[in-house]
Amino acid sequence: MNIEMIEAAAIRLAGKVRRTPLLSSPFLDQIAGRRVFVKPECLQHTGSFKFRGGWSALSALDPDTRARGVIAYSSGNHAQGVAHAAREHGVPAVIVMPSDAPALKIANTRALGAEVILYDRALEDRDAIGAALAEERGLVLVKPYDDPQVIAGQGTAGLEIAAQATELGVTTADVLVCCGGGGLTSGIALALADRAPGLRARPVEPEGFDDVARSLASGRIERNARLSGSICDAIVTPAPGTLTFPIMHARCGPGIAVPDEDCLRAMAAAFLRLKIVLEPGGAVALAAALYHPDAVTGDTVIAVASGGNVDPALFAAAVEKYGDGT
Amino acid sequence: MNIEMIEAAAIRLAGKVRRTPLLSSPFLDQIAGRRVFVKPECLQHTGSFKFRGGWSALSALDPDTRARGVIAYSSGNHAQGVAHAAREHGVPAVIVMPSDAPALKIANTRALGAEVILYDRALEDRDAIGAALAEERGLVLVKPYDDPQVIAGQGTAGLEIAAQATELGVTTADVLVCCGGGGLTSGIALALADRAPGLRARPVEPEGFDDVARSLASGRIERNARLSGSICDAIVTPAPGTLTFPIMHARCGPGIAVPDEDCLRAMAAAFLRLKIVLEPGGAVALAAALYHPDAVTGDTVIAVASGGNVDPALFAAAVEKYGDGT
Repeated sequence: MNIEMIEAAAIRLAGKVRRTPLLSSPFLDQIAGRRVFVKPECLQHTGSFKFRGGWSALSALDPDTRARGVIAYSSGNHAQGVAHAAREHGVPAVIVMPSDAPALKIANTRALGAEVILYDRALEDRDAIGAALAEERGLVLVKPYDDPQVIAGQGTAGLEIAAQATELGVTTADVLVCCGGGGLTSGIALALADRAPGLRARPVEPEGFDDVARSLASGRIERNARLSGSICDAIVTPAPGTLTFPIMHARCGPGIAVPDEDCLRAMAAAFLRLKIVLEPGGAVALAAALYHPDAVTGDTVIAVASGGNVDPALFAAAVEKYGDGT
Repeated sequence: MNIEMIEAAAIRLAGKVRRTPLLSSPFLDQIAGRRVFVKPECLQHTGSFKFRGGWSALSALDPDTRARGVIAYSSGNHAQGVAHAAREHGVPAVIVMPSDAPALKIANTRALGAEVILYDRALEDRDAIGAALAEERGLVLVKPYDDPQVIAGQGTAGLEIAAQATELGVTTADVLVCCGGGGLTSGIALALADRAPGLRARPVEPEGFDDVARSLASGRIERNARLSGSICDAIVTPAPGTLTFPIMHARCGPGIAVPDEDCLRAMAAAFLRLKIVLEPGGAVALAAALYHPDAVTGDTVIAVASGGNVDPALFAAAVEKYGDGT
């Protein structure tokens, strides 16, 4: 993995992937006690940054291989990203999803033209299922994070952040990234290290599922004790990847863990002040920026808001509970 | 009013006003039966396009006049736009607001540093109140729509739409605009006529408050019979302006009126498919695009989503009612 791969991905993604803006609000600055900028990847095609990696992986395949189709396993956002990228390339996609994924994500993935195969998250191994199907049908497996072209695609968000921060005159800041397996975090870390070395990527995770924070602290891959029990379903993964971990270990600042309730508050704040829709797992970084200011350094913080594919009832509950701006 | 005033406003606004993207979703295309692009001005500073006009008007004043301060009367979005523009210019702002405006808009306007003066929408004349205060304190009145520099500022959204449509290869389309007094619609109509003559601005209003549609049809200014009773509070105004009406009459296609319930459906669709937050009055144009396809011509439609300053309970209700995507 290197910056050239991210630059090459950016060329393949041009005109296909949205360059999301950097948003801000004086009200958020006031809560955080410092300037806050938000990179709303919820506005990306399919509602999350995952379309970047999906497009990057598909577009990097040779046409004959790609034509046989792709397979992915995902709790939802990667599924939609790969499904949409496959449809735009005119090739079939098979998506292996946990049976307890939000109904909306399953329905959306099917509506994007993919064949969805459900599995039991507690009893079955998605990697084994994916590998078997890939073998059987001659499909290319697009991993959710531990894949160089996926990391390169997610890294294009980092190129944008570096350029946008430079335009704003921001040369030093923590860049908080919602972190599951580390594809987005490692991609952004690579891009920032090359383009804006004063910006430091920092993974943010849900409390109780802070495998990346613990891995960065111990210097080796640590695993989560369990894989359910957080509303941040999109970023609950077993452990950092074997590709993503060394990248993060070499370039990221310490991880931050936030309670689920702060994600609901951050979702309401983003609704109220930025007019964007976030899912809990896409709000952990903003939650850290707003409600854990002591964990952040500097007078400016950039929070990546990684996705917005939230079930309507949960979003309504967050907005009703915290929509008064407190 | 002419295109040069809009171009001059665009120069004054550069770096201060966000260039909002054009968003799309295959799911929205499917509902509408044609390609749909959405211009999300809810992502603008203060949550609506009104900051464009506010900044344009303030920045056009000579510094000595501006230093005495400004006054505006508004149901909320213009208030926030002017208040924020005044604070960014370091000058005082007085905002005259109806006492039944959403609590959130009143609170936000105060939090942006403005002095808020409330009046009774049914019994008092906001123009008279504004004029008296302006006289008394030496403030410059910034009208919500019937002001050349305000129209010029709103017109910068039209310059962006013209450029973005050209990038997308869209040369012919209806551009549906949420319409109150006509500041945004007339500004966009002027910009499109000059930059993208195949794009036709069309005002969209709530049913029962379609003064602009009726005025365009009759060729003279028609008034609304009443000024309350729609959830689209942001765009309920007595009649098109004396400046805005001739511009719209010369350049706009026929108006469209949509029921309130369709605005709630459009809010849920925008939540689900674009991950943006719209208020009812900011959703009328998208509602027309999605649920009144027979009123629209061509294979592509562009809907301006003009604002997102919605009370949380109303938004939660819309999302819970229509968030299943129907």
